[in-house]
Amino acid sequence: MNSIITGTGTYIPKIVKKNSDFLNEEFYSEKKATIPSSNEVIIEKFKAITGIEERRYLEPELQNSDAAAIASKIAIEDANIDPEEIDQIIFGHNFGDIRFNDTQSDMLPSLASRVKHLLRIKNPNCVAYDVIFGCPGWVQGLIQADNFIKAGVAKKCLVIGAETLARIVDPHDRDSMIYSDGAGACILEKGHDKNKGILSHAAQSFTYDEANYLFFGESNKIIPNINTRYIKMYGRKIYEFALNNVPNAMKTALDKSGLPIEKIKKILIHQANEKMDEAIINRFYKMLDIEVPKDIMPMSIQKLGNSSVATVPTLLDLILKNNLEGHHISKGDAIILASVGAGMNINAIVYQF
Amino acid sequence: MNSIITGTGTYIPKIVKKNSDFLNEEFYSEKKATIPSSNEVIIEKFKAITGIEERRYLEPELQNSDAAAIASKIAIEDANIDPEEIDQIIFGHNFGDIRFNDTQSDMLPSLASRVKHLLRIKNPNCVAYDVIFGCPGWVQGLIQADNFIKAGVAKKCLVIGAETLARIVDPHDRDSMIYSDGAGACILEKGHDKNKGILSHAAQSFTYDEANYLFFGESNKIIPNINTRYIKMYGRKIYEFALNNVPNAMKTALDKSGLPIEKIKKILIHQANEKMDEAIINRFYKMLDIEVPKDIMPMSIQKLGNSSVATVPTLLDLILKNNLEGHHISKGDAIILASVGAGMNINAIVYQF
Repeated sequence: MNSIITGTGTYIPKIVKKNSDFLNEEFYSEKKATIPSSNEVIIEKFKAITGIEERRYLEPELQNSDAAAIASKIAIEDANIDPEEIDQIIFGHNFGDIRFNDTQSDMLPSLASRVKHLLRIKNPNCVAYDVIFGCPGWVQGLIQADNFIKAGVAKKCLVIGAETLARIVDPHDRDSMIYSDGAGACILEKGHDKNKGILSHAAQSFTYDEANYLFFGESNKIIPNINTRYIKMYGRKIYEFALNNVPNAMKTALDKSGLPIEKIKKILIHQANEKMDEAIINRFYKMLDIEVPKDIMPMSIQKLGNSSVATVPTLLDLILKNNLEGHHISKGDAIILASVGAGMNINAIVYQF
Repeated sequence: MNSIITGTGTYIPKIVKKNSDFLNEEFYSEKKATIPSSNEVIIEKFKAITGIEERRYLEPELQNSDAAAIASKIAIEDANIDPEEIDQIIFGHNFGDIRFNDTQSDMLPSLASRVKHLLRIKNPNCVAYDVIFGCPGWVQGLIQADNFIKAGVAKKCLVIGAETLARIVDPHDRDSMIYSDGAGACILEKGHDKNKGILSHAAQSFTYDEANYLFFGESNKIIPNINTRYIKMYGRKIYEFALNNVPNAMKTALDKSGLPIEKIKKILIHQANEKMDEAIINRFYKMLDIEVPKDIMPMSIQKLGNSSVATVPTLLDLILKNNLEGHHISKGDAIILASVGAGMNINAIVYQF
């Protein structure tokens, strides 16, 4: 009776932006001061913490919903379903469609509507909407789709996570090197086996003190008469927040699933920062008082950066299609999908293949 | 076992913008040509079709999420619940927070997160997210909340519809006179009486030909080197689309509810245009082959304009609190909530008090 993922798809943008491409950027601190280190040193330190060597930027002629439609088409073909049978299209993002070299977010119509249009789906009973939930938006879309399936209002859902963060970064902020573009999608269907599919989930929103850990703010460089805003974050606060809270959410989902921790073969966690993700995994296993299993956490951040809502579905697609070296998911394997981001939101799903 | 509305709230912005305030605007056609009629004639014609005499603009120092938080606080007090018991905060909007005299949409963090923050809710298990579904976003939020309650993941939801359209209108477009700002909210709770609450709902997304009937487009006035975009629509196409499709969605929801049409005491429909709404209601009753009952369609568009997602919850709040002359809802009355807008999306709920 659990919902099952029957197909996945991804679109990895074509433009490769290497760390060395930032060598000539003019970086300033959050306090808008010059930074004493050279860009070589800044980039080296950046790589050591985040693990990012390069990232992908979407081709200028495409927008977020275009990339999402490509990923969605692959997911639909992978699931081998008739697109006209889809009951809900749920699109997680944070900035809508942003044109290349523009600053306005466009969500009129919703990006889910755009994808449905691009897929040439006619069925008006296929309801298309966007969910804004920070980086955990795709995982949350899966949770919502699972709820709709359980409530009997949907049998087949297309769940998309796609973002073009490169179009909303402040070039004068070192953090701009973290962000990238990407699109991932999956088909979630009503299943018939209680041991397969989404076994459990957990979601939380921390807003009392944490609401503005990720925020929309002005450039680190003082530019008179320009008040364009960009994605901004308090990295240190996010690091501590994630470390203190993501393991608990994963534990909640695990407990709800009824599975022993030993059944978990992979943990696919939102890829914001390699060191942070490793620390989360270590804390999680420490809570359970067991050793961290080898190869438990697949990562693509080294080559793909942090593409927000797209990191988890992209990673899942890469593994399921054997495109991530050293990582494989077999029938019967259980995994955890987990995410953390703007809101601040956290969620986790325990899924058994 | 149906979900019931236990409290409502609204924030009606303080700034009154009268039709006469548009007398000095420089209007151009969609083809960027001058318009031969005088502004007096344009405004007279506008009023005859839409019914709008004046509309409300949010105070410059406030943003959309601020207005939403005020409306939410009233709804929570009206429901007489502890805000810490809310399981989900669902916020329907289309343009995020837009600062006065700015052009960027800000949804980082989500507006639902901002409202939760402003309400000083601590409970991290209260999940806060935004839904983008055009003007029907608030009705869709109610449908989603109902699904979550049915799926057993929520018992109490805060559902918000708030928008600041006045901050995204093209002053050189006659349609700018339609749009206004507003915020409405309600508390939806798990009920215990099968004859009360949300009896049924229907939702549709038409995207094959209709996706761009409402869109984000440039000014009607040619302004070199400026590519700021605004809310734009093909009014005639929307009129025909709504007339052909909204009555069917209302009929679907009515049929699912099992109620005879005679039980419906009020139809609260998204207020985009008075003439269009009247035509929809006429078509609906014609389908059912009965006369349109007197006073079936309460309206506040004359004074409040089209505030997108906020029109339906604002109208509901006005009636329930006896603030709309000539309209009253009594215990046992059934109503239809219906909406249509960007997507193009349509939805309807049959609700019994």
